Amino acid sequence: MSSLDNRFVFPVSDKVKEEVLKQDVWSVFSPSSGHVPKDSINLGQGFMNWKPPNYILKAVEEAINIVETNHYSVPKGRARLRNALAKFFSASFGRQLDPENEIVVTAGANEGMYAFEAAFLQQDDEVILFEPFFDQYLCNTTFQGGVPVYVPMTPPANAKTAVSSSSEWKVDIGKLRAAITPKTKMIVVNTPHNPIGKVFDADELRAIGKVAEEFNLLICADEVYESLTFDKEHIRIAALDEFWGRTLTIGSAGKSFSATGWRIGWCIGPAHLVKPTLAATTRIVYAVNSPLQEATAVGFEDANKERYFSTQIEEYIERRAILCEALDKLGLSYTVPDGAYFILLQNERIQLPRDFVVPDLVKHRPKDWHISWFLAQTIGVVAIPASEFYCAEHKDIGANFTRLSFCKDVDTLRAASKRLMDLKPYLA
Amino acid sequence: MSSLDNRFVFPVSDKVKEEVLKQDVWSVFSPSSGHVPKDSINLGQGFMNWKPPNYILKAVEEAINIVETNHYSVPKGRARLRNALAKFFSASFGRQLDPENEIVVTAGANEGMYAFEAAFLQQDDEVILFEPFFDQYLCNTTFQGGVPVYVPMTPPANAKTAVSSSSEWKVDIGKLRAAITPKTKMIVVNTPHNPIGKVFDADELRAIGKVAEEFNLLICADEVYESLTFDKEHIRIAALDEFWGRTLTIGSAGKSFSATGWRIGWCIGPAHLVKPTLAATTRIVYAVNSPLQEATAVGFEDANKERYFSTQIEEYIERRAILCEALDKLGLSYTVPDGAYFILLQNERIQLPRDFVVPDLVKHRPKDWHISWFLAQTIGVVAIPASEFYCAEHKDIGANFTRLSFCKDVDTLRAASKRLMDLKPYLA
Repeated sequence: MSSLDNRFVFPVSDKVKEEVLKQDVWSVFSPSSGHVPKDSINLGQGFMNWKPPNYILKAVEEAINIVETNHYSVPKGRARLRNALAKFFSASFGRQLDPENEIVVTAGANEGMYAFEAAFLQQDDEVILFEPFFDQYLCNTTFQGGVPVYVPMTPPANAKTAVSSSSEWKVDIGKLRAAITPKTKMIVVNTPHNPIGKVFDADELRAIGKVAEEFNLLICADEVYESLTFDKEHIRIAALDEFWGRTLTIGSAGKSFSATGWRIGWCIGPAHLVKPTLAATTRIVYAVNSPLQEATAVGFEDANKERYFSTQIEEYIERRAILCEALDKLGLSYTVPDGAYFILLQNERIQLPRDFVVPDLVKHRPKDWHISWFLAQTIGVVAIPASEFYCAEHKDIGANFTRLSFCKDVDTLRAASKRLMDLKPYLA
Repeated sequence: MSSLDNRFVFPVSDKVKEEVLKQDVWSVFSPSSGHVPKDSINLGQGFMNWKPPNYILKAVEEAINIVETNHYSVPKGRARLRNALAKFFSASFGRQLDPENEIVVTAGANEGMYAFEAAFLQQDDEVILFEPFFDQYLCNTTFQGGVPVYVPMTPPANAKTAVSSSSEWKVDIGKLRAAITPKTKMIVVNTPHNPIGKVFDADELRAIGKVAEEFNLLICADEVYESLTFDKEHIRIAALDEFWGRTLTIGSAGKSFSATGWRIGWCIGPAHLVKPTLAATTRIVYAVNSPLQEATAVGFEDANKERYFSTQIEEYIERRAILCEALDKLGLSYTVPDGAYFILLQNERIQLPRDFVVPDLVKHRPKDWHISWFLAQTIGVVAIPASEFYCAEHKDIGANFTRLSFCKDVDTLRAASKRLMDLKPYLA
């Protein structure tokens, strides 16, 4: 049957219309995509090139050898995981978490945020996203009939000419207030921040929270990188003042335990936000895979005994240093992240050769797409164009930046650093 | 903070409003619910009391010891699983399946159906459900702004007085045609059927398919019980005539491999239906857990060598016989299922004692809820009231039936049978 057979023309819904057409960044800039060289070094999508820790893998083996942990979880998540989360995180929330009513396990952090928005957004409700933002945020809102409203963060004044700290990227509270309308329902706050690496401090979070209070807005706190902060302490907006009552905090086993393919996430918040989110996730996925929930529970139960998180931070600091050193050698400007595992390279000094040809796939995209194409094809390093983290109107801000991931082992990062030295002839 | 604190009143979305209030059947009729005796025998929710087969569990252990299979899958699903599905299922679809464009792996079958509807339903589009129907179908439609339209199947004429075959439950094509409006977008066809156990034959599927053709409707073929047919061959509507072009077929590792807690499902269909469904699932869950996808791939790769599916069918035939024999001894009427693992008991002969008290939780529900409450409290067997599988308007049809699952080992089923003998004094 021909695909042009007009008996089989089914128009897609408005919500997926653009998604179906779009060539997303992840399926271009990956060594397995077929678009960039197979042997390029992948500092693109944020996943590790090592396994989750052995003590957790052992827990998977135990779980699959028990009948119950191969079968349905209750939709709110396995009791053992909810108990482990409550125990591990109560201190950082500054309150005793109730595992029965204040925690729901979701099919990855993404689905948690999706379910939260499904539970609370009405048609045309607006959700404020600070730019740059993780691209999945968009459809979490639009699939519910919601409307994303963009507030660009202010890059460091000297981003072009100097190495700057991620803390120099700022939310402009004036711009945030200006973006609020009677339709605004929610603000998304991502700390530690992807792709900037910014770890918001208490004053910044308070300023955002006060605006949420004033206009009675919900706060979606995406804190999936909470276990990865290097120079600053992770602070939860839900733990400040009285923001708990309006905040759902999202976490991720993938980021915490180097298990991005396990798809275990969770939402923590007051019962009046968790219960509707649970109602939504129950109908979207019913429940989350059981064996990897059990293993994640063990991850938290034994984390302190294993010195897991403190060791992990030390390792990431070393990884970050390798990549920073390479960029320093090249004299490039970039943002030193306080958390997460991304470096934002300021790319304006990279000059593509005049005769460098980019394919149609990339040609009509912002210039950071051209730079990423060049980096992959000529230098052999895959990186993500940061304009992907901006709305159409603001892509010119993002196009000055390129995201490099350092969630790779030191050998890989050293090899990438060596390749990056080949950039020298192309720097203005 | 008090939950009545009116600073924190956030109205939920229309889509979850009823869900938040509802006490769903699964969280009442389960030994772990706290509502029914902990030592009652659970013939309620359909999950097995055994593990997935060892050859698959071994594959999980292998997968978690490889770096890549702990990290992100591509959103369409791991290549190994898509290849295994294409190889295993091409014959039954009567065509060579293309694993790149005609298969998408989803976070359980439920999320596959949710994503399909997200991809194609516009606000107010109607989806036809044959009653009784699996309760998750409702929100798969309503969460997209769609409207379920109900067409009750006709029970066997002698359902009340005789044991009947699931094949005697019929779709009334006249009623189906009468239910179609200009807003109708999709028909959901579930074969083998939950809770009836009906395996639709080719003529029945053709009659439904012809209506779909006439009105240019999509078909969602929920075939999660495809590997569990006893007396009849499973026929795919997608393999008949030219229905392939309008049909997405949904499958489930949970049902196929006794792994209901793994949450691995898939959708198979033409590229013009799979691509939009992939676009939707990418934004809902991003990707599905990797290690259990790998193990499911091995499940299909080695199924024939292991004689897995044929053995499983023999075992289910034995399990079904145990429960049927008990009902026969009691002289109760029921539906003998040709597939899946449910028996629909005709409950009108069960007379609750006049002084039997049901709690408020159950009191205002149809009489099959009262019967299930009595079965659990007095007989010690948990079963599901079938009115849950009907819309409000048609609950009186369902209230005559009670669903018993036989996806339990023979010892458990024998123990349940013994307990069911205690029903004798309560039969009219």
